[in-house]
Amino acid sequence: MIIDKLYEECNKKSPICVGLDTKIEYLPKFLREEDTSVSEKIFTFNKMIIDNTSDLVACFKVQIAFYEALGIEGLKAYSKTVKYIREKGKIVIGDIKRGDISSTAKAYADAHFSGDFEVDIITVNPYMGVDSISPYEDYMKNDDKALFMLIHTSNKSSKDFQELEVSGEKLYMKVAEKCKTWGENSIGESGFNRIGGVVGLTFPEEFLEIKKECPNTFFLIPGYGAQGGKGKDIKEIFKGGVCGVINSSRGIITAHKGKSEDEDFVKYTREAVISMKDDLIG
Amino acid sequence: MIIDKLYEECNKKSPICVGLDTKIEYLPKFLREEDTSVSEKIFTFNKMIIDNTSDLVACFKVQIAFYEALGIEGLKAYSKTVKYIREKGKIVIGDIKRGDISSTAKAYADAHFSGDFEVDIITVNPYMGVDSISPYEDYMKNDDKALFMLIHTSNKSSKDFQELEVSGEKLYMKVAEKCKTWGENSIGESGFNRIGGVVGLTFPEEFLEIKKECPNTFFLIPGYGAQGGKGKDIKEIFKGGVCGVINSSRGIITAHKGKSEDEDFVKYTREAVISMKDDLIG
Repeated sequence: MIIDKLYEECNKKSPICVGLDTKIEYLPKFLREEDTSVSEKIFTFNKMIIDNTSDLVACFKVQIAFYEALGIEGLKAYSKTVKYIREKGKIVIGDIKRGDISSTAKAYADAHFSGDFEVDIITVNPYMGVDSISPYEDYMKNDDKALFMLIHTSNKSSKDFQELEVSGEKLYMKVAEKCKTWGENSIGESGFNRIGGVVGLTFPEEFLEIKKECPNTFFLIPGYGAQGGKGKDIKEIFKGGVCGVINSSRGIITAHKGKSEDEDFVKYTREAVISMKDDLIG
Repeated sequence: MIIDKLYEECNKKSPICVGLDTKIEYLPKFLREEDTSVSEKIFTFNKMIIDNTSDLVACFKVQIAFYEALGIEGLKAYSKTVKYIREKGKIVIGDIKRGDISSTAKAYADAHFSGDFEVDIITVNPYMGVDSISPYEDYMKNDDKALFMLIHTSNKSSKDFQELEVSGEKLYMKVAEKCKTWGENSIGESGFNRIGGVVGLTFPEEFLEIKKECPNTFFLIPGYGAQGGKGKDIKEIFKGGVCGVINSSRGIITAHKGKSEDEDFVKYTREAVISMKDDLIG
């Protein structure tokens, strides 16, 4: 099961997920000035990062919004990037946060669990209810696909709705309960199931509360670094073992900015990953 | 302002939105067998529907999931379709239900309010809070772009979260209140503002409750026809004037199935629109 594999990668390498939220301006000068298409330039940048960090990290996450922003050319780069990660035998998360129902959700499943944009795991938004989760089951029953559903996001305004009080509990706890229920029939060898949850590291106390409610849920954890999440918070959450993968995007993929505009930019990428690893599990 | 224009189109033509949720199997045989790309076939189907219904309807909505499901080729058809609708001077809604924050939401704004996928209005998911709405402001301040945010969706399992009780009210009412607040500084000549709401016709009582709370909100209304929403429910909601646009997808774009596999398939499309118009305002 893919979440078992992710858990294993976290333990073998590190619980780090490299977020490829690639923008043109992140590319070093030598790439920006190359005589190729935008799609090729972005893919080359991603490929160099993937090649130079794969041995250190559990997985990669590709934020599709940055590729959609560049239209068809951008989505060609997205497609090449996710294919490349899978060909290398690494796990790739499509950060797409799609949320729709029935035949539309089925179409999103076809879009992101097969064909040009095929990834191993996608992020989904549960606001529309179980109809927005169940259409992915057909793909997941082969054990090589999984979901991360939003529970408590890392941004400040997550409080607008997620922290509203619902019969004595916060809304995010109701979402956590559903996440637990919807996943409980698919627990793998690792003890985790295939409906994971997105919980931000920026709210460490709430994280512990959610973890207690959902002992079989594996987490995708944004909010580390620039947003304020710290290594010590992870150590507290990971007492008793790894239960998620921590994403870092800009902290890793822009580590070379102001330092290198050449092929050696990946030296700084690698250093950033190693320093994150030290902070998390050092 | 684009919502004023939409309101005007509803009054001049009809409050109908044709949903182009196009799947290959909906295409009549003459198109399926044409010696062109999948992208060309789908675009031709959409174009024929657009050309034969534009004089009868307020706008078109294109559900991006069905195009994403066909990968890069599908998204080329999406791009051509939305461009064609805008070139004809008609309003197009990108049904994308994106929901993300800060720079990621800004990337979605770039993706869907400019470039290959530019549309006039998009649907968004507010679960992450105001950070998932505010990044669209930069485009909206020119008055030619707007949002429809999910409030109460038309599916049965919308109750999983949207109907939870939050301090004496349902969650969807809290979302409706935010929709009202976030839009209140942008009320146009029509009396409606640029942050519209998605509310399903399948819950007519809840609709009236939301409408009362949000008198300046224009609605995108799914759930008509196959899902159970009726013309009489709309008449009740539209007492005092049009306050939204009613979407129909399969009811219109598959009206020819079992009747025509030829160029004349659009005769049935047009008939379906006229019969919907009669049911709504006849």
